[in-house]
Amino acid sequence: MTTERFRELGQQLRVDSVRASDAAGSGHPTSSMSAADLMAVLIDGGYLRWNVSDLRDPANDHLIFSKGHASPLYYSVLKAAGVIDDAELLTFRKLGSRLEGHPTPRIPPTDVATGSLGQGLPIAVGVALAGRRLDRLPYRVWCLCGDSEMAEGSMWEAFEHAAYNGLDNLTAIIDVNRLGQTRETMLGWDLDRYQARAESFGWHAMAIDGHDVDAIEAAYHEAIAVIGRPTVIIAKTKKGKGVRAVEDLPGKHGKPLDDPSSAIEELGGERDLQVRLAVPKAGKPHVFDAPGGQLPSWSVGDQIATREAYGEAVTALGRMRGDILALDGEVSNSTYSELFREAHPERYFEMFIAEQQLVSAAVGMQVRGWAPFASTFAAFFSRAYDFIRMAAISRANLRLCGSHAGVSIGEDGPSQMALEDIASFRAIHGSAVLHPSDANQTAQLIAAMADREGISYLRTLRGKTTVRTPPDERVTIGGSRVVRNGDAVAIVACGITVDQAVNAAETLAAEGIEARVVDAYSIKPIDGETIRTAARECGAIITVEDHWLEGGLGDAVLESLADAAERAPLHKLAVREMPGSGTPDELLHVAGIDAEAIVRTAHVIARTT
Amino acid sequence: MTTERFRELGQQLRVDSVRASDAAGSGHPTSSMSAADLMAVLIDGGYLRWNVSDLRDPANDHLIFSKGHASPLYYSVLKAAGVIDDAELLTFRKLGSRLEGHPTPRIPPTDVATGSLGQGLPIAVGVALAGRRLDRLPYRVWCLCGDSEMAEGSMWEAFEHAAYNGLDNLTAIIDVNRLGQTRETMLGWDLDRYQARAESFGWHAMAIDGHDVDAIEAAYHEAIAVIGRPTVIIAKTKKGKGVRAVEDLPGKHGKPLDDPSSAIEELGGERDLQVRLAVPKAGKPHVFDAPGGQLPSWSVGDQIATREAYGEAVTALGRMRGDILALDGEVSNSTYSELFREAHPERYFEMFIAEQQLVSAAVGMQVRGWAPFASTFAAFFSRAYDFIRMAAISRANLRLCGSHAGVSIGEDGPSQMALEDIASFRAIHGSAVLHPSDANQTAQLIAAMADREGISYLRTLRGKTTVRTPPDERVTIGGSRVVRNGDAVAIVACGITVDQAVNAAETLAAEGIEARVVDAYSIKPIDGETIRTAARECGAIITVEDHWLEGGLGDAVLESLADAAERAPLHKLAVREMPGSGTPDELLHVAGIDAEAIVRTAHVIARTT
Repeated sequence: MTTERFRELGQQLRVDSVRASDAAGSGHPTSSMSAADLMAVLIDGGYLRWNVSDLRDPANDHLIFSKGHASPLYYSVLKAAGVIDDAELLTFRKLGSRLEGHPTPRIPPTDVATGSLGQGLPIAVGVALAGRRLDRLPYRVWCLCGDSEMAEGSMWEAFEHAAYNGLDNLTAIIDVNRLGQTRETMLGWDLDRYQARAESFGWHAMAIDGHDVDAIEAAYHEAIAVIGRPTVIIAKTKKGKGVRAVEDLPGKHGKPLDDPSSAIEELGGERDLQVRLAVPKAGKPHVFDAPGGQLPSWSVGDQIATREAYGEAVTALGRMRGDILALDGEVSNSTYSELFREAHPERYFEMFIAEQQLVSAAVGMQVRGWAPFASTFAAFFSRAYDFIRMAAISRANLRLCGSHAGVSIGEDGPSQMALEDIASFRAIHGSAVLHPSDANQTAQLIAAMADREGISYLRTLRGKTTVRTPPDERVTIGGSRVVRNGDAVAIVACGITVDQAVNAAETLAAEGIEARVVDAYSIKPIDGETIRTAARECGAIITVEDHWLEGGLGDAVLESLADAAERAPLHKLAVREMPGSGTPDELLHVAGIDAEAIVRTAHVIARTT
Repeated sequence: MTTERFRELGQQLRVDSVRASDAAGSGHPTSSMSAADLMAVLIDGGYLRWNVSDLRDPANDHLIFSKGHASPLYYSVLKAAGVIDDAELLTFRKLGSRLEGHPTPRIPPTDVATGSLGQGLPIAVGVALAGRRLDRLPYRVWCLCGDSEMAEGSMWEAFEHAAYNGLDNLTAIIDVNRLGQTRETMLGWDLDRYQARAESFGWHAMAIDGHDVDAIEAAYHEAIAVIGRPTVIIAKTKKGKGVRAVEDLPGKHGKPLDDPSSAIEELGGERDLQVRLAVPKAGKPHVFDAPGGQLPSWSVGDQIATREAYGEAVTALGRMRGDILALDGEVSNSTYSELFREAHPERYFEMFIAEQQLVSAAVGMQVRGWAPFASTFAAFFSRAYDFIRMAAISRANLRLCGSHAGVSIGEDGPSQMALEDIASFRAIHGSAVLHPSDANQTAQLIAAMADREGISYLRTLRGKTTVRTPPDERVTIGGSRVVRNGDAVAIVACGITVDQAVNAAETLAAEGIEARVVDAYSIKPIDGETIRTAARECGAIITVEDHWLEGGLGDAVLESLADAAERAPLHKLAVREMPGSGTPDELLHVAGIDAEAIVRTAHVIARTT
């Protein structure tokens, strides 16, 4: 009986996948059909527990389609579960529909956007970590993976971290339909190889026939009983299963079926089975104590690295708010997230040298409403750029702190120097890009990031800088600071170059040239008003940044002047040649972004009175 | 006798690592000391074959330090091999020295820059692929890996591809010293687990004591005899081996020893052993036939997608030059690299869904002088952004082609839309960023990329565009094209928005507003002269791009006007809100980058005569 019902439901999911793709005129029905039986048993067998009347119930299980292109199947599941109706199903891929080409959180209860392969499982690890160590609720995370995406290294980062953390609340299901977009995958149907790999990474692994609903049910039953380890179900399936015109055939990826009517007939016609999902036991998320306290502050004139201020500020924030978390990529003594780890060990997550998993874990945790701060060297966030890009599509609230920015790190050389981070983060949708020059700015910006939606990035420095911002001065995202007044030329700096700009201004002042120095600690959004005022009043602008010429502070300043009435020649000082090793001062000098270079430029463009 | 000599050489490498780090005042001596015996046997046992008198000999083996922070060891090896002298060794990390904090090609025979963990092995796979399938020379690639970096997913992409391609000319050596920067690695000294993982990925794997020089020699001996599979030597070692003050102790990462004199004494003092490296048998790289031919061209008015033009152009180039290669991330029927695969199967490399390995393989192949073109969806190059960043530090000549850019792809939704690629590629040192609007531009730019040094990126479109560039018109990197003359307003567009700009200009012309349309197919370098002329003559500029507002065409245009005498208000049209699914036309409209939006903007800012 159950067997037959599972089969029927599987066919319904196939038919609905075909119908949705046909209505859209595009999509991935064959990649959906291979996994239909797996999903039928998951929802109808009582394994996936969702309170459909409250899709935000914290006790709900999580279902992540790592193979996001199987969206027709996902939406067909939502229809069978009563989350959407048939009319909405047929809006698939149409303008304004919540059912986009690949799933996004626009359609609840979807946690995150998928569609860039290899991201769903690492994020699922983050959600499962939240379930185990933060919420402390028995929800389970189910993740449907494609076999093609097993070639992404990020999947193996996820395998390693899930096992290392003993995430028995996580079940991965690999839909081994053998066929990628243009050809067979590297492993084809070699299920043994998948199993050996998963086991060597510490998982409980099962290989089954992914179209045998009894075997699928037995596998789920076994998966939820495993203690101390995550489980992976490696399911041998056929792409396009059930329709001879496409089943297990190459060249059938990513397009609607040529003859949907015949296909639907072959699948037994349309059905309208409704599934009553199992409802999870009610539960409340764990709440961490937050005894309170206040942000750290420093006296004007103190010398302290902004990376250290980050560590102190995020640790203080952890005392003030129980939802604050810290994650690090095994450089916590460099980024100073070690202070948080020592103070709040339960809310610190060591992600080792795996930046893709670092960011994905943070994305997974914010799904459950936690407020993660993830840190590593700024240069190494470039490793996770696709994950940050996708996090924006996931409407994730993410706080990233990159240390060791720019040539000012000195001897370690260019591999460790972030010189592209401002540009790349500015081009993340909805991002904030912050680069404080001193410790007091850092602390206030960290607090502001905790409250901010979207992707917030803060860049810190390796070396010490002088505290110039008084502890009681307000520092905001979108703000800036006029460090020094003057109207002969405006020097707009950020981070390490603020010290250089101040030194340059002093030299210039001694020559009778009064330079204004603007500390643009918020690069996106930038304080356009202050920039435009400076342009109007000073007549010429020098921007100076420890970053490549393109896409950084200089471009942000130019943009704020683009269509303004206030126009002033602008000269960008930025890193133009590949740096090598050297002391910080030497490298700032060679790059032409030190006080001397600013003075030299000012001599050329400043107003002479 | 040999045993003793190996041991002595190992101690010398340790002493020199300590000395170099001490002279620099920074560096990673303890991470060097763990692998010293492994390197001593490699060079003195005759395993590493280098013609030291000709470091560019194509028959030479390759040695890649994937754990680039063990640079003191690497430079000590170069000294022992007679490549550098002791005086140069002691310039380590000093301004101007070839011996940077992490290795770069500034010091021959270093192939590539390392220092961002998890990149050396994927690049080694590329070099080994070149040896096997391109050069067809028996050189061997030796890759020293850290254990911490085994947490990077990119290492497992490399493991998979090396085995899939049967690269028995590749030997990886994992220096399992157990200790990362702040703590023990996830696997510690569990060599069995490493071995099981490597074997499950298809490698021949051995676990040895990495300080037992006889065992090391036996392992190398076995490695070079293995046929059909790559070999990994998993070596149990101690960080800081040989010096009690640091050996196997936490907290000793990445800093010089406190008492170098005592350490050197404990290690038996300075030595000056010189190693005569084994010399490889002379050999000439294979040369592929290139029958010749010419670039494809199209007639003005033809409708063809630039992605298809890419496929045709790179295929033609492959006929004209035997050094041209193509690699793809399993989307070759989308990027049209399938045309190259069909025409030149020996020079096509399928990298499956593993973009980090895709880029790394290309980096490895260009080490040997080949000219790879790597393609995938433009959005997915973001997955390899750290690898592209590092490729610039490697001084690599890389050609990347990203298809399916922007909202104009339509229904697939934002996960598949590159909207940050122009910004992120502009911020790669020495890059060119190209975005042709038609097929003839594409073909010529592809040919120019083949001749260009550095990182060149070309962005193609999914949908068809109208050929406007006559086949005989010259298209160059750094050039642009004035599609239409006018002096009421200048519309600067690229790619898909050129069609929109032309349509807008026609609408405006009917109203008596003569707009100039500039096709800025080269975004970096941008044709500043044409932009400045347009600013001067038209008085107002509209930029329009299918890309986020930040860091793209608009910023490039602003930069070209930054310090110019020609000033004009500039209005950027770009994507500002997160797109969803829809038809290309719908999405261009919603994003406000279609002809209608251009006309609307022109009405506000154009000169009224």
